[in-house]
Amino acid sequence: MTNPVYLDNAATTPLDQRVLEAMLPYLRGPRGNASSLHASGASARDAVEEARESVASFLGASPEEVVFTGGGTESDNLALLGLAAADPEKRHVVVSKVEHAAVRRSALHLESFGYEVSWLDVDAAGIVDPGQLSEALRPDTALVAVMWANNEIGSVQPVNELAEICAERGVPYHADAVQAAGRVRIKVGDVPVSTLALSGHKLYGPQGVGALYLRQGVEVKPVIHGGGQERGLRSGTENMVGIVGLGTAARLAREELEERARHEADLRDQVLNGLGGISGVHLNGHAERRLSNNAHLRVEGVEAEGLVLFCDALGFEIGSGSACASGGHKASPVLLAMGQSEQEAFSAVRITVGKDNTVEEIGGFIEAFSGAVEQLRELSPLYTN
Amino acid sequence: MTNPVYLDNAATTPLDQRVLEAMLPYLRGPRGNASSLHASGASARDAVEEARESVASFLGASPEEVVFTGGGTESDNLALLGLAAADPEKRHVVVSKVEHAAVRRSALHLESFGYEVSWLDVDAAGIVDPGQLSEALRPDTALVAVMWANNEIGSVQPVNELAEICAERGVPYHADAVQAAGRVRIKVGDVPVSTLALSGHKLYGPQGVGALYLRQGVEVKPVIHGGGQERGLRSGTENMVGIVGLGTAARLAREELEERARHEADLRDQVLNGLGGISGVHLNGHAERRLSNNAHLRVEGVEAEGLVLFCDALGFEIGSGSACASGGHKASPVLLAMGQSEQEAFSAVRITVGKDNTVEEIGGFIEAFSGAVEQLRELSPLYTN
Repeated sequence: MTNPVYLDNAATTPLDQRVLEAMLPYLRGPRGNASSLHASGASARDAVEEARESVASFLGASPEEVVFTGGGTESDNLALLGLAAADPEKRHVVVSKVEHAAVRRSALHLESFGYEVSWLDVDAAGIVDPGQLSEALRPDTALVAVMWANNEIGSVQPVNELAEICAERGVPYHADAVQAAGRVRIKVGDVPVSTLALSGHKLYGPQGVGALYLRQGVEVKPVIHGGGQERGLRSGTENMVGIVGLGTAARLAREELEERARHEADLRDQVLNGLGGISGVHLNGHAERRLSNNAHLRVEGVEAEGLVLFCDALGFEIGSGSACASGGHKASPVLLAMGQSEQEAFSAVRITVGKDNTVEEIGGFIEAFSGAVEQLRELSPLYTN
Repeated sequence: MTNPVYLDNAATTPLDQRVLEAMLPYLRGPRGNASSLHASGASARDAVEEARESVASFLGASPEEVVFTGGGTESDNLALLGLAAADPEKRHVVVSKVEHAAVRRSALHLESFGYEVSWLDVDAAGIVDPGQLSEALRPDTALVAVMWANNEIGSVQPVNELAEICAERGVPYHADAVQAAGRVRIKVGDVPVSTLALSGHKLYGPQGVGALYLRQGVEVKPVIHGGGQERGLRSGTENMVGIVGLGTAARLAREELEERARHEADLRDQVLNGLGGISGVHLNGHAERRLSNNAHLRVEGVEAEGLVLFCDALGFEIGSGSACASGGHKASPVLLAMGQSEQEAFSAVRITVGKDNTVEEIGGFIEAFSGAVEQLRELSPLYTN
């Protein structure tokens, strides 16, 4: 049996084997605790600092502005809970209705502590209105969080405009860039975000490691307390091998970003053109302002989970809604916020291509997907074309 | 140049190459997001659940009682902050004065929120008095935390007695077992702990992954919020490869524990016998109730950092105090709690052997260490023997 064709890169990307090669010497050789005085400790420390420089360079930041964490979710938590705790007099936060659960649930956690949350609407394409953000800001606003690009539908927010509004009003702005990083060129010198979250495994790096960009002068309080690693912002022995992997992944993404984005956009457009001819198939999200790798489709008359499993049986792995929300059969809050009905939301599948997918794979996928839709619709008592 | 002899296993253990072999197929092959519906997702889920069974079996627990985290520090945070948040009316916590910073700083964090903290004393060997614990408990005590064995001096606490006292009074008891696991046979059926923290990289597994044992019926609230992984207790895409590594490390530790402990105790005693003849060298911690791998020595007339660096130059890597507390030249709170002076505390080194160290390595170390002490003392204006 051949390997399945993997088209769920928004859930997790494959580990780049060049990243693995960079990690292997540390997996095979002696390793130290980066806090130890001796040579092994110094070697671990050097490896961590080299990775920090690489992540900083990827973002156009300084190494001191990079904090390593246990993943994108933890980075988002550190931003939201950490920014709020750093300015405890301010008890109001503003977040969009289409944030990843890591941001959404962090905001709800703050709400459970008495914070007031203003939820920004999105239009039918999932885009936030800068005017509404401007109106939502108050003297007691502790932070704003609007993601760089959405993990489900791939819509890219007007981050620059949003961040500028916050910067002018002196309000910290957090961007979850977990999906955008490696697909959109991010330069923190151009966009005045205060904090920005990255994840290793969405970037062809390891799972279980992430980073938070923390602009110089912006204060956050830690979420995890202990030995004081990462300048006190994230205690716990440094995950040296994971950090080396993230650093390498960031370097490769920096070097190859445009090439990857062009390749991904070609494959994505191949998907959209190939499936656009099927009646009752609609693109979710913004037609132009979307990630290079994301084709999010509503397929009338089809239940998404069934379609995902059917495609899986045919050797093509795609996503239904967001794989980051584990378990639970609930309609995507993102699609609901865009004005879709529950039934529409349950008919959505996410096809996210990656840098290593090929034109041939997509060709095979289009054929398999089209056939699957046809068969599922024949079985559906509700669908009449 | 030959590899240095690594005698700092309490800071981090080397990665067992059998653990790496178990991880490699997942590092080289396709990987899924354990929350995805398709085959890659299912494979990731299976790998995570197999590891959960292995960790559970290591502790004599049920798989549902194991929560994977980003490391030992995060496990300790989840226990302390999570237990406290689960019963918010109770605003008193009891912790020992010799806890790892992950527990100590979590308790201080609770204190900053208005909690009252009772700090349990230790005797000169670093052991807690169960009587004092008994007296410290109150109707509003939210939790007690006394570690299984100390990360610096290796003293093993009377955990069973302490946990029994708490169980009788209905107070949750957390044991940081990061150092004890793999050296002491832990059976949660025998010791009524409520929660217990493990770390992968102290157990010949990967860095950046840990686990919290959570006894059935004990409630904790999450510290990290998001997609609801790990039954809502630890959000974030599962670090599948790291978890596979921890699972394998736990299986090997379960199978080899007595053999390792015997070997380590032999090497430790070789260290103690070999260095015990040097005048002005004293064992810190309890003579019998101590971890098999730990020789913690106070060396009169010598500054620990200098001795560590001298040994490093000679090819032997040892620790000064606790490597988990990064940076900062502060006297160990553990040694101060044992009644030592700052000067005494600064003369302490930690030699922690591992399962792969040899009698020959220890022989070479004893020679090098003895010579280093002699030379440093000759340079010291204060030391007169």
